[in-house]
Amino acid sequence: MLNNNISCLDNGHLGFSGVDTVAMAKKYGTPLYLFDENKIRENCRVYRRAVKKYFGTESLPLYASKAFCCKSMYRIVNDEGLGVDVVSGGELYTALSTGFPAGKIFFHGNNKTESEINYALDSKTGGFIVDNFDELYYLNKAAGERKMRQKILLRVSPGIDPHTHKAIATGSVDSKFGVPIKTGQALMFVKEALKCENLDVEGIHCHIGSQIFDSKPFTDAAKIMLDFVLEIKKETGYEAEKINLGGGIGVRYVDSDPEISLDTIFSQIKKELDIMVSERNLKSPVFLFELGRFICASAGMTLYTVGSSKTINGYKEYINIDGGMSDNPRYALYGSQYTFYKADDAKAERIKKATVAGRCCESGDVLGEDVTVPEFSRGDILAVAVTGAYNYSMASNYNRIPRPAAVMLHNGKSRIIVKRETYEDMVKNEI
Amino acid sequence: MLNNNISCLDNGHLGFSGVDTVAMAKKYGTPLYLFDENKIRENCRVYRRAVKKYFGTESLPLYASKAFCCKSMYRIVNDEGLGVDVVSGGELYTALSTGFPAGKIFFHGNNKTESEINYALDSKTGGFIVDNFDELYYLNKAAGERKMRQKILLRVSPGIDPHTHKAIATGSVDSKFGVPIKTGQALMFVKEALKCENLDVEGIHCHIGSQIFDSKPFTDAAKIMLDFVLEIKKETGYEAEKINLGGGIGVRYVDSDPEISLDTIFSQIKKELDIMVSERNLKSPVFLFELGRFICASAGMTLYTVGSSKTINGYKEYINIDGGMSDNPRYALYGSQYTFYKADDAKAERIKKATVAGRCCESGDVLGEDVTVPEFSRGDILAVAVTGAYNYSMASNYNRIPRPAAVMLHNGKSRIIVKRETYEDMVKNEI
Repeated sequence: MLNNNISCLDNGHLGFSGVDTVAMAKKYGTPLYLFDENKIRENCRVYRRAVKKYFGTESLPLYASKAFCCKSMYRIVNDEGLGVDVVSGGELYTALSTGFPAGKIFFHGNNKTESEINYALDSKTGGFIVDNFDELYYLNKAAGERKMRQKILLRVSPGIDPHTHKAIATGSVDSKFGVPIKTGQALMFVKEALKCENLDVEGIHCHIGSQIFDSKPFTDAAKIMLDFVLEIKKETGYEAEKINLGGGIGVRYVDSDPEISLDTIFSQIKKELDIMVSERNLKSPVFLFELGRFICASAGMTLYTVGSSKTINGYKEYINIDGGMSDNPRYALYGSQYTFYKADDAKAERIKKATVAGRCCESGDVLGEDVTVPEFSRGDILAVAVTGAYNYSMASNYNRIPRPAAVMLHNGKSRIIVKRETYEDMVKNEI
Repeated sequence: MLNNNISCLDNGHLGFSGVDTVAMAKKYGTPLYLFDENKIRENCRVYRRAVKKYFGTESLPLYASKAFCCKSMYRIVNDEGLGVDVVSGGELYTALSTGFPAGKIFFHGNNKTESEINYALDSKTGGFIVDNFDELYYLNKAAGERKMRQKILLRVSPGIDPHTHKAIATGSVDSKFGVPIKTGQALMFVKEALKCENLDVEGIHCHIGSQIFDSKPFTDAAKIMLDFVLEIKKETGYEAEKINLGGGIGVRYVDSDPEISLDTIFSQIKKELDIMVSERNLKSPVFLFELGRFICASAGMTLYTVGSSKTINGYKEYINIDGGMSDNPRYALYGSQYTFYKADDAKAERIKKATVAGRCCESGDVLGEDVTVPEFSRGDILAVAVTGAYNYSMASNYNRIPRPAAVMLHNGKSRIIVKRETYEDMVKNEI
């Protein structure tokens, strides 16, 4: 099994978080998002402990909530002592609606609207990660109008390519995020920020991409960031107290993805950082991280019912499921790989190649092309592992398919955390 | 201007359907979907007239409602005398909720669920386009339980590649849709269907893909379909009365896309069909079409407010808008091309290349890379033309961004047809 929360139960059914997935499909219907609360908490704890061990108690471990944003998730993450990043007024609203402490919420985004900036200020959001000059000036003005001083980090782009899919590599010089160091614009950005009388510049931020399995892209970025801190210090006398290195720690979707230890990666990063900080005679800045996928991906699984299967003699075999790109557009967008299980018979031999196709009227609606799977028949439950990140959060009503329910599993029990959308829900705003 | 419903008004603002787009952005906020009712009706009429002229009054022109599905659209299309295709229970529900005549609704999909099939039967849906053997057998059984005879077409795949993007080319032998002719499986499919005592086989159906600008892919498909009709006749004595050639007529997104005339394409198809039917000594079958994009794409425009603009010296320029892949994922999915206007100054010279980037925290969230545009400043309204198809219908709450309102323009007046989603809407199903 791909992860330790996936098992074969005594009755042969696929277990997730120790719970019978076939029973879940029967109880709640399909498609169904399952979440494993213990795995979410475990990932939070692994993260929190590693941050504390290597980066100290001043480093608040942050959860990038865009990966899986819903009320229940904010409650769990808060309970585990993490802070969160939000990327919109909608995420901020959701977090606040659960009583999440505003001071532990940090506001990201390359194009925050003025009304969102005002909303975040009025909500006493802990910090802004300021992306660009326009935001900087507007935020300074809006904070001034409120007689507030707002803590900020400045997002810069380090010019790093972590060799992942183009759409999820974000640290390159020409990224839409942040202000580039290489062109000299980031230095101007810092100088302008230091002039803003209502803003308290705590440091700088970068994010290099997604699905990174080793420490090198982080230490490469850190080197550029520390050189930049030194340059800022020489030019302005200001020494950044905080350096946020973003997220991007990879998770395993398929057996061929590497197994990583966050502790190991963080220890390697820390070792390099100590040397680099010392070489530059800097005070030790606080290093921060923002993990999204790492926290929730492996805590999710999606269950589908197999409808028609279709063999195109000599060409291809299709297994058609009752969901698809409307609940998981990641294959359509990025060609993302997944691991598929037969929930009714978890140990069923993987005897053939087939394409797992969604039900949307679109050829691109598949979840896996020519993947190795067991035999499936009409009515069988097909489980897709590691769907906890960027599935519910990216779901649509394409083809007017209602978004699935989400069920949280905890110590053998299940509870609905997101109700299944109804046909009525989908038309309620239509006149 | 790209289309005749886009204009420069006397005050220099961009007009859409003759209405001031800047005034619309001010009145309803952004992002905003605009729709041009006269253009929808005009497209319906062009279509209906061409169908009547070339394919006769027995050929009901069909609107593939997945392109833009909402209550208002079903009302207009019904008013114009078209039938509709639906691809899910959700689309069927929406159509029926407006009083759309069930007999003019046709149910598509590669994996209809049993509950949807029952719902469509109970609703007296005009026809099923049966995709596969599993659906055929279940439908026959379910119709029998209701003592009904259900009219059906059988979807087959002709093995045609219309040279479009892989994800929107659907007629190839190994498509997830239909049963392939080439492998001999389609003939078995017809034979099985003819044995189903509760099903009335009216004919066969194929769909070859999207964005087709000439008649040849249709006549190529028709040739294969007519050869197949002949083969069926020889093998079984059954002669198909209806042949549905699907949709896929291209629309212009950018100036370099060809201008087409539906009348010309249909006249060319008709001419070839007459020859092919006569050569095969067939009774004249009724030919049907299903157009989606053709009806609604050019009737849509999306308005955004420009937030930050960002020049990465020597690399790239970004214009950041207050929407993006959450309201229009087509660039992220297919690299689709669009035409951009400055609504505040419709004739502004296009003086530079820039990337129009969305506000989602994802590098892939752009609507156009290195496109030629005028100068934009913070607060300007940026309009994206030809967004009437597959924008609202594919929209998500990614990054927890509320879906835009949709406003219908008609003879200079505007009315909301889809209310803007609220933060409350987005969390209402969360516990």
